[in-house]
Amino acid sequence: MTFRAAHLLGIEHLHPTEITTLLDLADQYAEDNRKGRAHRDVLEGLTQINMFFENSTRTQASFEIAGKRLGADVMNMAMQASSIKKGETLIDTALTLNAMRPDLLVVRHPNSGAVDLLAQKVNCAVLNAGDGRHEHPTQALLDALTIRRAKGRLHRLSIAICGDVAHSRVARSNIMLLGKMENRVRLVGPPTLLPSGVEDLGVEVFHDMREGLRDVDVVMMLRLQKERMDGGFIPSEREYFHRYGLDAEKLGHAKQDAIVMHPGPMNRGVEIDGQIADDINRSVIQEQVEMGVAVRMAAMDLLARNLRAKRGAQAAGVMV
Amino acid sequence: MTFRAAHLLGIEHLHPTEITTLLDLADQYAEDNRKGRAHRDVLEGLTQINMFFENSTRTQASFEIAGKRLGADVMNMAMQASSIKKGETLIDTALTLNAMRPDLLVVRHPNSGAVDLLAQKVNCAVLNAGDGRHEHPTQALLDALTIRRAKGRLHRLSIAICGDVAHSRVARSNIMLLGKMENRVRLVGPPTLLPSGVEDLGVEVFHDMREGLRDVDVVMMLRLQKERMDGGFIPSEREYFHRYGLDAEKLGHAKQDAIVMHPGPMNRGVEIDGQIADDINRSVIQEQVEMGVAVRMAAMDLLARNLRAKRGAQAAGVMV
Amino acid sequence: MTFRAAHLLGIEHLHPTEITTLLDLADQYAEDNRKGRAHRDVLEGLTQINMFFENSTRTQASFEIAGKRLGADVMNMAMQASSIKKGETLIDTALTLNAMRPDLLVVRHPNSGAVDLLAQKVNCAVLNAGDGRHEHPTQALLDALTIRRAKGRLHRLSIAICGDVAHSRVARSNIMLLGKMENRVRLVGPPTLLPSGVEDLGVEVFHDMREGLRDVDVVMMLRLQKERMDGGFIPSEREYFHRYGLDAEKLGHAKQDAIVMHPGPMNRGVEIDGQIADDINRSVIQEQVEMGVAVRMAAMDLLARNLRAKRGAQAAGVMV
Repeated sequence: MTFRAAHLLGIEHLHPTEITTLLDLADQYAEDNRKGRAHRDVLEGLTQINMFFENSTRTQASFEIAGKRLGADVMNMAMQASSIKKGETLIDTALTLNAMRPDLLVVRHPNSGAVDLLAQKVNCAVLNAGDGRHEHPTQALLDALTIRRAKGRLHRLSIAICGDVAHSRVARSNIMLLGKMENRVRLVGPPTLLPSGVEDLGVEVFHDMREGLRDVDVVMMLRLQKERMDGGFIPSEREYFHRYGLDAEKLGHAKQDAIVMHPGPMNRGVEIDGQIADDINRSVIQEQVEMGVAVRMAAMDLLARNLRAKRGAQAAGVMV
Repeated sequence: MTFRAAHLLGIEHLHPTEITTLLDLADQYAEDNRKGRAHRDVLEGLTQINMFFENSTRTQASFEIAGKRLGADVMNMAMQASSIKKGETLIDTALTLNAMRPDLLVVRHPNSGAVDLLAQKVNCAVLNAGDGRHEHPTQALLDALTIRRAKGRLHRLSIAICGDVAHSRVARSNIMLLGKMENRVRLVGPPTLLPSGVEDLGVEVFHDMREGLRDVDVVMMLRLQKERMDGGFIPSEREYFHRYGLDAEKLGHAKQDAIVMHPGPMNRGVEIDGQIADDINRSVIQEQVEMGVAVRMAAMDLLARNLRAKRGAQAAGVMV
Repeated sequence: MTFRAAHLLGIEHLHPTEITTLLDLADQYAEDNRKGRAHRDVLEGLTQINMFFENSTRTQASFEIAGKRLGADVMNMAMQASSIKKGETLIDTALTLNAMRPDLLVVRHPNSGAVDLLAQKVNCAVLNAGDGRHEHPTQALLDALTIRRAKGRLHRLSIAICGDVAHSRVARSNIMLLGKMENRVRLVGPPTLLPSGVEDLGVEVFHDMREGLRDVDVVMMLRLQKERMDGGFIPSEREYFHRYGLDAEKLGHAKQDAIVMHPGPMNRGVEIDGQIADDINRSVIQEQVEMGVAVRMAAMDLLARNLRAKRGAQAAGVMV
């Protein structure tokens, strides 16, 4: 077993062999999903709780489908509407849920680090479904699987991450994962939307989109958050699209077989041209969503194996 | 097999033999539901997603119970609260869900035609749970099953549909279904609430409730939407009830064994008198709800059979 | 069989032997939950609907986990958002759901007595998950199980219920249950938060916290509702904590091995000091949550047995 983590909190602490193990398993699940092959026994008898402190229909649905395909009992808890309003602390909420003895806890939270904190307090496996501007590991893993399937490898590729990198946990997790797997990562965007000091991360920075896309294998667009549009970060949606929106002309600077990615949901006509998004020869955006289910199945499968091993050892009186 | 549709988008394109096939199967499910007999294998391993862009506790619950009784993995997605707010288009939402490889998609949407559009974009079976003023096919089918069980047949009956016909997708689907099965349909209501040009549909129109109910076998009341009550469509709730609300006196003009129907939820004292609604000798309103589960089980069963046949043929390399 | 109730509406009508039967079964479920032992067959094929007219993430989650662990199909219906807005009456909602033939109906409602009323209208087993200021029987049962496990018995104990007793259905159900099992119950709090005429219930009343806690075996704190904090009931949060908040000094007046309980969610620093709440030698607050799942499993198991027996008798033509 080359996947040893008890939680999936971020890409930061994953070893490249753990990433490969997870992607290999996800690849199998992706194929079995296409064939309609079931794996109900993998998480049978386990309880998965999705705790979303931020709304996200698509990410929550992906985790829910993944869990149900593997036979888990899946519960969704919309957290904003309830106990949080009553002034309960995050830790009390976590301890309460933990006392109900769930096995897998999927958490999205607006604060960076909140999911790590929570993982320290519970006895089950925790999966980070996005925390503040910190990490969104399953998104980086599904992007990696999509790239690997399209390009046949996940190393020595040139990948441009474009747009609002500074505020994006998706970008942050991707930069780490793609770096660990020895790819060349470029960040492309206006200075106001790029993080400072990123050169230390071993990435190149471009403020000109055409230069940034030159000869890359992968063009990874980011979503421009609505709040950025009226915050002084960009002059106007129109101007932003003109300079940084992905269209056929700009894409022409990338390699001929470069693929186009987007984590969704898209702002068509803002960060990406609708025709590019729908071009089945270039865009792998739907495949990203499909791989999302497969990656989450693999992550929960591996974490459940580690959890069962740990509990078995504890029951046998062995310290772990 | 006499049910060939890939989707259940409306009554309009169903053939009478398809309707009969569906009702016959639903009738069996209704009996088995009463006996507590399970059919977990019918949709086992399939994923059903309920996408409700309009709130409807009862319709959503009915589809959810139907799917779970047949062993499907059922997911509810409340769409207004999430990605729609982020400005994502309906088509992008559909493509995203489709990429997660669901098998049955149950959709309610405020816009007429939205569900048809969506069905063109996905690889799974789509069920219309109500779209704008267009169609609500499972409601018409459950009404038909309720009538057939109460009257012993579904043809050559005289049926009055009363109230806000103009704005009602329930009425629209019912008019089509009852017409296809060769019944005589009457529309009863004030001119402001009846559609224009309906004589072409082969229906009779009455503005006087007593005349409209004379000697009918079935009195089908419609819900008066709150927004109609203060929109100049009716003089007042009280006046409306006086002229068009169903009470014992007006019902006296129908046949002695006429049944009373309502799609729910009811406005007691507005379109229907509470005592009539609760009269177990006349009202079949609770039976309608019960048949709703059975009809949805039958519809999903039949669509899943066609979906599996299509996928099997595709896997075998046959064009369908 | 010493549990004969068709519904679990309150503690009021339960016989002490029924309470003991339920707690004994819950104790077994608690142990099996810890060992990860499944009991999927207990509620297999049954439909459980959680109808929460008041939000409660933790209580709803507890019932949902309990039902799923026993193999039920569990549906959550958030009632405020939907049909209630459309003006439908509680009874119509109940009749509609009943027509869908659920087996277990878990109901929380802001009005005292609403759950009893609803139970009279349906054919399934109803569990009260809290109604107004009336009862919250599963909370009292989980408290009882927690006490019994910590103290080794559930009789001849001295128990102080502290805080906002007047407005608390938790307190009301606990007073009845603990009285039935022959314990000595004390109510502790300011006169504005204690009910009048409680001496008839066989309880002692204390306005001084130190006196009230003297030599008790169990300190049961209640949640101070936010609306009480600015309603003239208490001078200020700070002053309230000073006089009635549980801290180490006040707890020092209880027996040395007294346990500390709270139904959650807690207002740390208002009714309870955070350190006391987290002290694993005194606080059994997490155990209460854990026992909550076990008690709800036991309650639904027992009610389902009675329901099946009743239906079997009805099917055989026997009146029950």
